[in-house]
Amino acid sequence: MAPTLAIVGATGAVGTVMIDIINNRETVPWGEIRLIASARSAGKKITVRGQEHTVVELAPEAFDGVDIALFDVPDEVSAQWAPVAAERGAIAVDNSGAFRMDPEVPLVVPEVNAEKANERPKGIIANPNCTTLSMMAALGALHREFGLRELVVSSYQAASGAGQEGIDRLQAEIAAVAGKGVGERAGDVAEALAAAGLPAETPFKAPLALNVVPWAGSRKDDGWTSEELKVRNESRKILGIPDLKVSATCVRVPVVTTHSLAVHATFEREVTVEQAHRLFEAQPTIVLQDDHDNGVFPTPAGVVGEDPTYVGRVRQALDFPNTLDFFVCGDNLRKGAALNTYEIAETLAK
Amino acid sequence: MAPTLAIVGATGAVGTVMIDIINNRETVPWGEIRLIASARSAGKKITVRGQEHTVVELAPEAFDGVDIALFDVPDEVSAQWAPVAAERGAIAVDNSGAFRMDPEVPLVVPEVNAEKANERPKGIIANPNCTTLSMMAALGALHREFGLRELVVSSYQAASGAGQEGIDRLQAEIAAVAGKGVGERAGDVAEALAAAGLPAETPFKAPLALNVVPWAGSRKDDGWTSEELKVRNESRKILGIPDLKVSATCVRVPVVTTHSLAVHATFEREVTVEQAHRLFEAQPTIVLQDDHDNGVFPTPAGVVGEDPTYVGRVRQALDFPNTLDFFVCGDNLRKGAALNTYEIAETLAK
Repeated sequence: MAPTLAIVGATGAVGTVMIDIINNRETVPWGEIRLIASARSAGKKITVRGQEHTVVELAPEAFDGVDIALFDVPDEVSAQWAPVAAERGAIAVDNSGAFRMDPEVPLVVPEVNAEKANERPKGIIANPNCTTLSMMAALGALHREFGLRELVVSSYQAASGAGQEGIDRLQAEIAAVAGKGVGERAGDVAEALAAAGLPAETPFKAPLALNVVPWAGSRKDDGWTSEELKVRNESRKILGIPDLKVSATCVRVPVVTTHSLAVHATFEREVTVEQAHRLFEAQPTIVLQDDHDNGVFPTPAGVVGEDPTYVGRVRQALDFPNTLDFFVCGDNLRKGAALNTYEIAETLAK
Repeated sequence: MAPTLAIVGATGAVGTVMIDIINNRETVPWGEIRLIASARSAGKKITVRGQEHTVVELAPEAFDGVDIALFDVPDEVSAQWAPVAAERGAIAVDNSGAFRMDPEVPLVVPEVNAEKANERPKGIIANPNCTTLSMMAALGALHREFGLRELVVSSYQAASGAGQEGIDRLQAEIAAVAGKGVGERAGDVAEALAAAGLPAETPFKAPLALNVVPWAGSRKDDGWTSEELKVRNESRKILGIPDLKVSATCVRVPVVTTHSLAVHATFEREVTVEQAHRLFEAQPTIVLQDDHDNGVFPTPAGVVGEDPTYVGRVRQALDFPNTLDFFVCGDNLRKGAALNTYEIAETLAK
């Protein structure tokens, strides 16, 4: 019998993209599809593959008969409800941070470590953080051939990493600074936002329009942010390299959706640009945009809304042996969240 | 007798900032100040320290009696005219790329290598590229104590790196996308720019509003851009470390003015965050904004228009020995161009 799929958080930003992905697949392996959300959204009607569904309220009984439950809800909601889904017999695929570093929960990127999805003693599989995910297809392909040893990464992260609230805030800030000629005097952007009546409280800790903000996530020890430590710890777990050396600096930029990363990656063996190009071209989930002679490279606004990871600006480091520098763009709501979660479910359904 | 100062390119974006700096100094060591520009701007009246000056046309005689001539003009104009100024007895301080890598021309950042200003066989001193300059005060201070060995740098470069044309283009793009809800579908930003009637030709090779563009400067060999090679070669020359290992990725961001850099720097000796903080606090041209507990860090829109280099997010790398990660913001029109050029002139006048 065709398995039953549940989407928990079906009415959120990522849940909406999950439904869009399901609507655009040629075929899906599911029998029933069940949409689950908080009491506030229960009763809402959403059309999935031509059929109207009514959103049901999150409750233990909502998981009865469910084979795979995709979760995109806050950490504390996942922490409480993913085990409930698992108890009722579902495999929970969770996109929160609640279980990612749990040694009994695999952290899965299908094109890198699909086999890990079968080792899930808690009945829970975790989906990585969107920043880490943006570079995993590219690094997984390179690691298999050349043995990754070190990573220095700087991010250019989109506003939608902070959800719909982040998107709305950035768009409101852009409207507030447009035509004002600000950005040439310290604090004049902040003054323009205040003059437009935007609340001083923002998801970004500082103005994001006409600015970049070297802070993402929450405060951790020794000067690091949670986002920077996730890049380090999740990369190690997904790639299966417990001693991978990682330094990450996570920076928010005024882009709506799609995270970009400047990656400096050192391998056990020498790797040329041509070898890297061939690997990227052979990987169905990567699109190579790297024609240096004609100035072709990926940008977030050029690839947003697309499924693949886009890679370009591939260079052999001039002074570091066995090292590549490259630039990668990935839609943080798709491969960075909804798409990878859904691909894990597809892997399980096979 | 007080020396005569000339400003060549006095009516340009950087020339204007030079005059602003002169107007705001408590005292200046100059007797005459002479403003020089192309025929198009000659005859224009500009007030400097309360006195009206008439801009004179660039010509050999314009340098007669000049002791120090500051140049901010295109590379080819500098290449032709800085030697003319030197022949007529002036010291030319040049902010173009024409002479930076000439072994007979010193590349000077006063707080790092002021003594080099005295070795100028051609009568020419070069001012570094603005991206390199943004991190030099911080790296110079660290290098003196700990011995810099390796640098991995990602930039977040402002639109004004492409001059007034770059500023105007970014502001026009921001106006074109404001309130349009674009940035969620590939190419919709570019469509909004076209719909607003903006020319497809841009200084940035791609839309900059709601985007980041991993390209700055011109195409060089092996996948590198001129800007990335400048960061490498100029850092080596200024710091006097011919074998410094450098990888840079230069990315344009939708910020009006002030370049930011995420720096991963490896030293000969161990360096703690506390030691780095003390060095930065002791350096008069650096402002430390690094209160991790309270989320205090520099951003470009927060410090634009200010003279110092702002440093924050200082962290000891978790996996790389003797390595610091930090974030730096510097106004690319001030310390990155006009200010450092003027500071070289002040050093010479002493």
